Amino acid sequence: MDVISVIRTKRDRARLTDEQIDWVIDAYTRGEVADEQMSALAMAIFLNGMERDEIARWTAAMIASGERMDFSSLPRPTADKHSTGGVGDKITLPLAPLVAACGAAVPQLSGRGLGHTGGTLDKLESIPGWRALLSNDEMLAVLRDVGAVVCAAGDGLAPADKKLYALRDVTGTVESIPLIASSIMSKKIAEGTGSLVLDVKVGSGAFMKNIDDARELARTMVGLGTDHGVKTVALLTDMATPLGLTAGNALEVRESVEVLAGGGPSDVVELTLALAREMLDAAGLKDADPAKALADGSAMDAWRRMIAAQGGDPDAALPTARETQVITAPTSGVLTRLDAYAVGVAAWRLGAGRARKEDPVQAAAGVELHAKPGESVTAGQPLLTLHTDTPEKFDYAQQALTDSYDIGPAGTSYEPNPVVLDRIG
Amino acid sequence: MDVISVIRTKRDRARLTDEQIDWVIDAYTRGEVADEQMSALAMAIFLNGMERDEIARWTAAMIASGERMDFSSLPRPTADKHSTGGVGDKITLPLAPLVAACGAAVPQLSGRGLGHTGGTLDKLESIPGWRALLSNDEMLAVLRDVGAVVCAAGDGLAPADKKLYALRDVTGTVESIPLIASSIMSKKIAEGTGSLVLDVKVGSGAFMKNIDDARELARTMVGLGTDHGVKTVALLTDMATPLGLTAGNALEVRESVEVLAGGGPSDVVELTLALAREMLDAAGLKDADPAKALADGSAMDAWRRMIAAQGGDPDAALPTARETQVITAPTSGVLTRLDAYAVGVAAWRLGAGRARKEDPVQAAAGVELHAKPGESVTAGQPLLTLHTDTPEKFDYAQQALTDSYDIGPAGTSYEPNPVVLDRIG
Repeated sequence: MDVISVIRTKRDRARLTDEQIDWVIDAYTRGEVADEQMSALAMAIFLNGMERDEIARWTAAMIASGERMDFSSLPRPTADKHSTGGVGDKITLPLAPLVAACGAAVPQLSGRGLGHTGGTLDKLESIPGWRALLSNDEMLAVLRDVGAVVCAAGDGLAPADKKLYALRDVTGTVESIPLIASSIMSKKIAEGTGSLVLDVKVGSGAFMKNIDDARELARTMVGLGTDHGVKTVALLTDMATPLGLTAGNALEVRESVEVLAGGGPSDVVELTLALAREMLDAAGLKDADPAKALADGSAMDAWRRMIAAQGGDPDAALPTARETQVITAPTSGVLTRLDAYAVGVAAWRLGAGRARKEDPVQAAAGVELHAKPGESVTAGQPLLTLHTDTPEKFDYAQQALTDSYDIGPAGTSYEPNPVVLDRIG
Repeated sequence: MDVISVIRTKRDRARLTDEQIDWVIDAYTRGEVADEQMSALAMAIFLNGMERDEIARWTAAMIASGERMDFSSLPRPTADKHSTGGVGDKITLPLAPLVAACGAAVPQLSGRGLGHTGGTLDKLESIPGWRALLSNDEMLAVLRDVGAVVCAAGDGLAPADKKLYALRDVTGTVESIPLIASSIMSKKIAEGTGSLVLDVKVGSGAFMKNIDDARELARTMVGLGTDHGVKTVALLTDMATPLGLTAGNALEVRESVEVLAGGGPSDVVELTLALAREMLDAAGLKDADPAKALADGSAMDAWRRMIAAQGGDPDAALPTARETQVITAPTSGVLTRLDAYAVGVAAWRLGAGRARKEDPVQAAAGVELHAKPGESVTAGQPLLTLHTDTPEKFDYAQQALTDSYDIGPAGTSYEPNPVVLDRIG
């Protein structure tokens, strides 16, 4: 087996054989196949695609590159959620403790933000004392005690994916359905969850800009999970505008706590409950009532214990930005569009995200929304507030927001996108 | 400017801008763009192609990455030849001294073999004492004294191409018309020749398997040369069967000396003279008579002085292989096919070529042909003789020759391919 013949096979639009896939993933993990060879193969996959069973074998080979976790000793059924990433997508924060409060175990191995989408670990790290790195034993202990844990994936899970993900990020080979699907599902299957709900985002703030691509990605991932014995469903959800009223690390924690306290923006509450019901159904807990667990404080209680179990102080004040700048509505009327991607890029530039993996993020940076599409605004009222510790970035962030919203005349009719666009499973 | 946006531009089938091309070639040469990024771009170029003026800019950027040589101080017009590579293609060896004997200066910067095609420098290094590495000053001195020099290109010429060529070789991105054309022409234009004749091979033993691809490559290269003020023509020549009766380093030197002595296989003589006439025409020496220079010994004299000027002994015995093995004709009849690629691979496996750049080659290894397509053969007569110092490779070389030839019944009519298939210029 040699890597050039593997690259040529895909370059020339043929299906990779099972033996080629197994060999190239293993050889890449061991360092025998070099980064420049894998990136050529990744670009060939990006441009020439993969068949469904080819993606399945690729995913299986990435799982086989590392260890698999096993939660079968837990007394509760496991349920996990994965979002393909969006702007203001803080749903994991209220969702994990909520589903735990309803009786499932939620092992949420999460990532850091890169580009315009935030990372769950970055958000939680804005809570004083909270730490993302747990050993496997610590993780199991939190799961057993609290029912939910959000932490960084260990190095042992799907190491081939870890290498390939970092490589794709710097070689323009991210937005490929076979590569995205196999990356997500290899991690989730290796993690050992019994059931999985996928939140596939659609719209300007998501990787998938149109619903056909999103549906194809969702079907591919549901098929991969099902083949590996993981009960998997996917919701296609709207990412044309940011979720909730905040994008940024501490800003999103604050909003998540509002939701756990029974308040918060209606779209965040609606999506949190929709995903919770799917997770509980998939875990076989059909009688659980997540709306009740939000209302009666049991979800908030699970949140407080989850944060404390990882060293965080749930009562500590969250950091606030050194400076803010307000963008006001230039005219009165109805806000008919507020672009998710533009807000994500602005938050990123303000310091909420990172340009390179090794960059730090600002806990307090981000964008606060004062109106959502469909709402009336008055000329001069605040539309957005920008938060940062590095005010020299205000101009750069504002550039991203040029043409990011439309205001129609008073009385303009506005048909909102549903929060959940479709369900695959 | 960032490399990911450059990669995405080509990935998404758009034309690279002049600024993107200039920046990415310069940044790659400086090491700011990493190999894994350039290989992703190379695969995107391979699969999505480049427009004609895009290739021209890419070539110009590769030339600008290094120094340019200048032969304008020479009293003779310069004429260079480049072959895209074939099996048994020893033409440079008789051609360079022949054209020098007719009054042109021939600065032949050559390469080493990789894969199934031999390298001119490897062939000449089978002559005891001959050395390929010359300083620019030494090269100019040989050109001035002898009129012809065959040597390794210095590190200063088109360093971007040097890096990219090595990268393409290990990433399955070799056989791309834009990348081949820009690689060849950047080196040849930087080298500073006034005129250039391209020998574009077509057939199983060549990179271009069909004449349409070869014609497209030839047209692209002729256009690039002309744009840069180099008088450029291309001959499309047959590579369905090996050139001459030998493939291997010392074996080909011996055959070349036969040609210079006025003998040698007719196809080698025909192609040498055709290329010589083109080079002399391009150099403005329309009255020169290369056939006469072969017949009267002046080409042989130039050869002897050229070899001696680089430390070689033109009278030294050439190395012979420790072992040989004969393949005989299984039936009587007419040889109707002898596949160039199969013979090239067999010679390579016997030790005439290298698998990796750092491997040594065997001077004496190779394949000797005892019949060419169109000739009658008798059952039991020698068809091929394999030469090697590593007889354990005989079986592996023989495998390459399975189904490499056809013998038709006596009287089978055979229409030979012309040596020169087309001319572009």
